[in-house]
Amino acid sequence: MDPTPASPVNALMAAIEGTGRDIRRGGYSRPVYSTAELDLREWFTAEALTRGLAVETDRNGILWAWWDLPENSSRGIPEEPDAPSPEPQRRGALVTGSHLDSVPGGGAFDGPLGVASALAAVDLLQAREKEGSLLRNRALAVAVFPEEEGSRFGVACLGSRLLAGAIDPVKALSLRDADGNTFADVSRAHGLDPDAMGRDEATLVRIGDFVELHVEQGRGLNTEEFTDAAGRGPALAVAGSVLGHGRWRFSMSGQGNHAGTTLMADRADPMVAAAQLIVAVRQAAAAQAGARATVGRLEPVPGGTNVIASRVDLWLDVRHPEDAVTAALVEKIHGQAQRIAAMEGCTVRLTEESYSGTVHFDAALQRSLEQSVARTAPGAPVLATGAGHDAGVLAARVPTGMLFVRNPSGISHSPEEYVEDDDAEAGVAALADALQDLL
Amino acid sequence: MDPTPASPVNALMAAIEGTGRDIRRGGYSRPVYSTAELDLREWFTAEALTRGLAVETDRNGILWAWWDLPENSSRGIPEEPDAPSPEPQRRGALVTGSHLDSVPGGGAFDGPLGVASALAAVDLLQAREKEGSLLRNRALAVAVFPEEEGSRFGVACLGSRLLAGAIDPVKALSLRDADGNTFADVSRAHGLDPDAMGRDEATLVRIGDFVELHVEQGRGLNTEEFTDAAGRGPALAVAGSVLGHGRWRFSMSGQGNHAGTTLMADRADPMVAAAQLIVAVRQAAAAQAGARATVGRLEPVPGGTNVIASRVDLWLDVRHPEDAVTAALVEKIHGQAQRIAAMEGCTVRLTEESYSGTVHFDAALQRSLEQSVARTAPGAPVLATGAGHDAGVLAARVPTGMLFVRNPSGISHSPEEYVEDDDAEAGVAALADALQDLL
Repeated sequence: MDPTPASPVNALMAAIEGTGRDIRRGGYSRPVYSTAELDLREWFTAEALTRGLAVETDRNGILWAWWDLPENSSRGIPEEPDAPSPEPQRRGALVTGSHLDSVPGGGAFDGPLGVASALAAVDLLQAREKEGSLLRNRALAVAVFPEEEGSRFGVACLGSRLLAGAIDPVKALSLRDADGNTFADVSRAHGLDPDAMGRDEATLVRIGDFVELHVEQGRGLNTEEFTDAAGRGPALAVAGSVLGHGRWRFSMSGQGNHAGTTLMADRADPMVAAAQLIVAVRQAAAAQAGARATVGRLEPVPGGTNVIASRVDLWLDVRHPEDAVTAALVEKIHGQAQRIAAMEGCTVRLTEESYSGTVHFDAALQRSLEQSVARTAPGAPVLATGAGHDAGVLAARVPTGMLFVRNPSGISHSPEEYVEDDDAEAGVAALADALQDLL
Repeated sequence: MDPTPASPVNALMAAIEGTGRDIRRGGYSRPVYSTAELDLREWFTAEALTRGLAVETDRNGILWAWWDLPENSSRGIPEEPDAPSPEPQRRGALVTGSHLDSVPGGGAFDGPLGVASALAAVDLLQAREKEGSLLRNRALAVAVFPEEEGSRFGVACLGSRLLAGAIDPVKALSLRDADGNTFADVSRAHGLDPDAMGRDEATLVRIGDFVELHVEQGRGLNTEEFTDAAGRGPALAVAGSVLGHGRWRFSMSGQGNHAGTTLMADRADPMVAAAQLIVAVRQAAAAQAGARATVGRLEPVPGGTNVIASRVDLWLDVRHPEDAVTAALVEKIHGQAQRIAAMEGCTVRLTEESYSGTVHFDAALQRSLEQSVARTAPGAPVLATGAGHDAGVLAARVPTGMLFVRNPSGISHSPEEYVEDDDAEAGVAALADALQDLL
């Protein structure tokens, strides 16, 4: 017999720990609309139905589980017609949730922790309503956003971008995965109508506020500023801002040829040019305070051992708190790419795949979250985050806020990403309180 | 109406020009035991049966099409029991042929030209036998070797290596393709018995001599030394040697992490280390006369845009006429890899995947080929080749030789690889003469 039965959120996480495991890379690979991600959606739907929530998929593939107000009260509108009108941002529903897709070989918590915590918070809130300690003025929904990581179609937060109108649907639908399938075809195969995808005002007006709980993805809670004598940081933080970030693809083209018969002097090898570019990227980022620049994906074409590549595609991820600095850094790297390409007899093409400026979360919502969290987790700091989130994309259209749960190692997008059971429970307690205060 | 009907070899090549096209990379992708390569084997079998050849697959997956001596004469042994015994190397059958698999996004000629030319040469020889101008003393066979490129399981000339005992079958059977399938499983799925694979003395003794025709893969026939006033090189060459060559895998391991939340100073990024290694490889090879070193394949793990890789695997192809120089060059590169890894907080592991020393083709067979070729293509030079071939692997066990057909651009392992129709016909004429002289 297990002496420590899992708490609700940890039991929910345990139920999906076998889904989408990646034997080769370690951790999980749960790309959007893969068997693994579809299995997780099914799990979420079943869990939501168990809680009496009404589940629907909107026209951009976002899953919604609605806990509506009791019958005869329309969503988000107080029951008594004579009552004073609520503040405008309180009129729509309160939404929480996150995503279920992962990067290739990612950790267990990035995304699913926010979804499982939302379900566990609904449990707490439903129990409080039953015992009479919760009074709701508006509906609550749990949302699951597709392709948050952009690991299949290359654009992060694709679902929330489509919903908010932050990406041209024509561009989104023409994105291709590694097998050459378009996002339009894959969406159609999963029951969506590509012609109906894109900015969705009808859904946006239903959202009053969005609160996303997420595993912290850096060492923000483990810095000396916050840790106690035992070196342990606080379990939770409230998000202040999301670092501006974007993705750029460099296509370096040279002359494909035979690795054995082509003399070194006769080569125009795009792999050698790409390698110099990667070194230049690191140098440029290291020289710019606050900047992060990464090449984590690189694809030589054709990619044979005995073949000099004809083209190398590499993806650059750049982030900085100031949008102008990010733009200047990318421009500097582009200039270096052109010089390197010319020296190697190659050519280079730069494509911006996505860009999101630095987002400061809604100030009123942030204060509300800070006050709620302080009740169960005093000392939770406000953190800026280097990671992108659906809450950052939606911030352009609705008030959004975030809670972060401590990640002891600070490692994320890796099998080593980790959250302790106690911290996950603290996250659910704080999320439930925060939602109750906003309902 | 087409005013220039294709000659037999060009008609054969035209029949397979739609098989295994690679839309994404351009050219052809025909990895061993893929639908495309299996289709080509079926095409070859049908063409061989049409010519009255007996087709069989040996226990290593090599296809054989036998043109046996007339009934009552055993293969390779003269009909009259009292006749003097032939020279030892003339006792077995005369074998020609090549391979049908390709590198990813390869050209149309690398492999299939040798197979199609062999079939077209059989046509010529069968016609000569019919008209009485050919007298055969031994059987002729056309062989098709699997996985010559090593583009699926990583070891080039895998079929001929197994036949000749040049690779431990336990090692060969445990090789994996990109999807994680072992060579054992894939071989079994295609009707072979993995337990029976490996050195095959029964088949080796049936081979008297092996002559392989192949597209030239460098600029050897286009150098000023050989070209005429119009800048056109000779159509054919006879091979003198195959440059020693090998494949080494470097696994650079660091700390996988989130691209947005991990400060530049906190990183141990194996992609940055791999990039420096690629630059070092080029510098080391350029500084060593006659050496060629290439990184054409590189795989970051997990390979997400917003993920600092935890590991980068890259494959190094090194070639040099002197085996000791190759070994010293790889050792030098290994030392640099270790220094770079240490500087970046990474670790590196080196694995030799294959190595073949420089091969000098059988001198007597080479002289015979030179004399035969001179009749229809005077001025054909003797060339060393930087490319590996099954004829190079088999040279350790039986006399082997090669004919090269001109490649105007010198580009190979690329969609731009090219052979002119007239040169292909000259190749068949010379191959038929060479085979006739050896029969």
